[in-house]
Amino acid sequence: MAERPDHMDPEEFRRRGHQAVDWVADYLARLDDFPVMAGVGPGDVRDRLPDAAPEYGEDFTDVLADLDRVILPGLTHWQAPGMYGYFPANSSGPSVLGELISAGLGAHGAMWTTGPAVTELEQLVLDWLVAALGLPPAFRGNGVITDGASSGTLCAILAARDRAGGADDLGRMTAYVSEQAHYSMAKGLRVAGLPDSRVRRIATTPDYAMRADHLAYEIVKDRNDGLLPFFVGATIGTTSTTAVDPVPELAWVASNFDAWIHVDAAFAGTASVCPELRHLNAGLDEVDSYLFNPHKWMLTNLDCSVFYVADRRHLLNALATEAEYLSDGTAAALAEGDHETVDYRDWSVALGRRFRALKLWFVIRHYGLEGLRAHVRRHVAWAKELAEWVAADHRFELAVTPVLSLVCFRHVDGDEASRRVMDHVNNSGRAFISHTTLEDRLTLRVAIGSPHTEHHHLQELWTLLRAAA
Amino acid sequence: MAERPDHMDPEEFRRRGHQAVDWVADYLARLDDFPVMAGVGPGDVRDRLPDAAPEYGEDFTDVLADLDRVILPGLTHWQAPGMYGYFPANSSGPSVLGELISAGLGAHGAMWTTGPAVTELEQLVLDWLVAALGLPPAFRGNGVITDGASSGTLCAILAARDRAGGADDLGRMTAYVSEQAHYSMAKGLRVAGLPDSRVRRIATTPDYAMRADHLAYEIVKDRNDGLLPFFVGATIGTTSTTAVDPVPELAWVASNFDAWIHVDAAFAGTASVCPELRHLNAGLDEVDSYLFNPHKWMLTNLDCSVFYVADRRHLLNALATEAEYLSDGTAAALAEGDHETVDYRDWSVALGRRFRALKLWFVIRHYGLEGLRAHVRRHVAWAKELAEWVAADHRFELAVTPVLSLVCFRHVDGDEASRRVMDHVNNSGRAFISHTTLEDRLTLRVAIGSPHTEHHHLQELWTLLRAAA
Repeated sequence: MAERPDHMDPEEFRRRGHQAVDWVADYLARLDDFPVMAGVGPGDVRDRLPDAAPEYGEDFTDVLADLDRVILPGLTHWQAPGMYGYFPANSSGPSVLGELISAGLGAHGAMWTTGPAVTELEQLVLDWLVAALGLPPAFRGNGVITDGASSGTLCAILAARDRAGGADDLGRMTAYVSEQAHYSMAKGLRVAGLPDSRVRRIATTPDYAMRADHLAYEIVKDRNDGLLPFFVGATIGTTSTTAVDPVPELAWVASNFDAWIHVDAAFAGTASVCPELRHLNAGLDEVDSYLFNPHKWMLTNLDCSVFYVADRRHLLNALATEAEYLSDGTAAALAEGDHETVDYRDWSVALGRRFRALKLWFVIRHYGLEGLRAHVRRHVAWAKELAEWVAADHRFELAVTPVLSLVCFRHVDGDEASRRVMDHVNNSGRAFISHTTLEDRLTLRVAIGSPHTEHHHLQELWTLLRAAA
Repeated sequence: MAERPDHMDPEEFRRRGHQAVDWVADYLARLDDFPVMAGVGPGDVRDRLPDAAPEYGEDFTDVLADLDRVILPGLTHWQAPGMYGYFPANSSGPSVLGELISAGLGAHGAMWTTGPAVTELEQLVLDWLVAALGLPPAFRGNGVITDGASSGTLCAILAARDRAGGADDLGRMTAYVSEQAHYSMAKGLRVAGLPDSRVRRIATTPDYAMRADHLAYEIVKDRNDGLLPFFVGATIGTTSTTAVDPVPELAWVASNFDAWIHVDAAFAGTASVCPELRHLNAGLDEVDSYLFNPHKWMLTNLDCSVFYVADRRHLLNALATEAEYLSDGTAAALAEGDHETVDYRDWSVALGRRFRALKLWFVIRHYGLEGLRAHVRRHVAWAKELAEWVAADHRFELAVTPVLSLVCFRHVDGDEASRRVMDHVNNSGRAFISHTTLEDRLTLRVAIGSPHTEHHHLQELWTLLRAAA
């Protein structure tokens, strides 16, 4: 050992690990004490750290001390009870510990053989979710965990491109997404080689849902022009307002023209763990692919996104590649419909895959489905309550009726007043809200989602909003 | 709290966290006791777990117990001292604790404002590495962490495609990779919309390095045919043999034809922390992009890959998208050459980005550069030693002289004998080695890389190999 003074042996790891856990526990206990949004200016964090890497190892205690000195003041605290910006990116105790153990195991899930338990637990947990969320039976055995919705959407686009003829026909392919679609759809299409000029933005209803009649019209027009409509991107729970696109109608249109239909339910997907919210799943039996992010509302820390296909063939055809050094004599060949050995490197862009299913398994086992339902129901109820407060205050107007746990509203005096309200709340340090633009009007977004948020925090936010108005 | 029995509060997290750390410490202490390769058959892991998610929360102790009962027997132990397969995917104590704290913070690095410290620490650590590895100064301020080499390579291809005219010209673009290139290059090109028919496989020298003269010939031929050569993928340290492509010559050819040249040093990149191995970096001053994986040989657990560009403009042009709900009034606009605020969501496919720089920072500070050098030097010296043992044994022949820490060799009696040797070693449970094919001959690969491997493990492997021969 003398020649390796810096090797952290298991006993040293145990000691330092307890220190690190204590640090996190103390952080969680103080979550309500930090300004939600970082107060630093550009370069402030970096300026407090050395310009060069150390030549010799430093003491772990000094590293932990720098977390308090430099890192915490430079963070926007996504887990804080007053975090209402964007969509939530929840973490939770069991998820953090699942991530710890995954890192400690250092397992690798590129192929079944590189870690059978990595692959099989992923298959199992994703099948659990098919049942728990009331998703179509065709998704069973056809799910994969990716790092985020951008990756899942890209996979859907690549599978769709393959089904429509592959890269050789790319030059005449066209795609259709809502005006309200998340920008990852446009980005994925661009990555896949589709120029922006062949991406159609479909108009929405007053509720910001994609119009199926406009979709049909645009597809027919393109077909008459000799183009090849290949991809329709729908959303359940848009980022701006959690609008729900009419999936049954969109799927009917898409299937009539042999276009792939993909559904992004990144945020809203978790909600269908509650039977009373399962109407959100209408039409999913007819779609080709679907995703949602447990790292948003299912208490699982970033990153963990779940992607399902109804039929895996085109996904594998688009992404599988054989390489001799990765093969081995023992893995059974992947047979059509054989759910037993799957090599997940062929299911998305990434080859290296850490053991992400572990934290999702920890979360589901710790909370149970009833615990997850209670988590969703609190937030949905509070959003309804906040929306009622907003509606009853003559200085505010609701932009839409909340679908789930996002409340969108404005100051009746216009953009300047709305921005003043937002700045007042955000500068308070007690809460952070974000905004969007709807019909050219600045609209405030309050997304309720932290497991650390209690009802009194919501009341505090409302007090701040009223004071600012 | 009565209504939320499953909420893990900070004190409960502390208690469960200590349990989880102890579990990992015990695992690390037992690393040498497990069969390296999982002994389970398809479905064995899954069959030992319930078919449906629990309705009510379970005790954390029961979850930990299932790790021992179900998960460990189903794992291939990548951190085991006898793991010599593939390339290493190292973890280490400080890295695991960095991952733990990253998960505990639940921070989000999509944009500078969503977590200034997430972005600035990433910039800082990647700049540290530019100096520590002797990389070109142009890479300073131009690095980004991705999940793996597949993602970085895809980013390089997208930037190259943008520089060559974008998706509209894709129909006549051609790309060039070595016969020995990692399959992520072909996969990335396919994702980006290039059909396999326009990907040229360039022949290699007897040392398995890409031939610059063949590259020039193929490019000229394609240009004469009206095609648009846009991307050359080179490798420093190929997967099969750690061959080093002649980057100076390849870069000269590529630049003469305005093709982007990207270098994949996924495994080998870490080595240049040692000045005596920095000759591997020859020619990098002339390349457009470069990547290596700290999650391979730099003691940082999966996933952590580092991608650099010499000029960020085409990368951002290919990947940046504006979205109103993501913008805010406070972030300074990204100005050309302004390193102060960077929105990393625009630097790769992913939008959601966890705080990966933290674990890399923990590793570098814990080991110091001298510690990282010692880690690399042990493995390089041992590979040389093992190669000498192999060369001196008349039953074996070296396939190539080791460049770094990978030893490639065969049984002189041919494929069947080589396979028998490999199976004997792998079935012993004490070690795991993988293989590749070189000149149609089965070739065994011993990749030394675990921080838990000691010299006596290498001697044990050699005893196993000799007994099998």
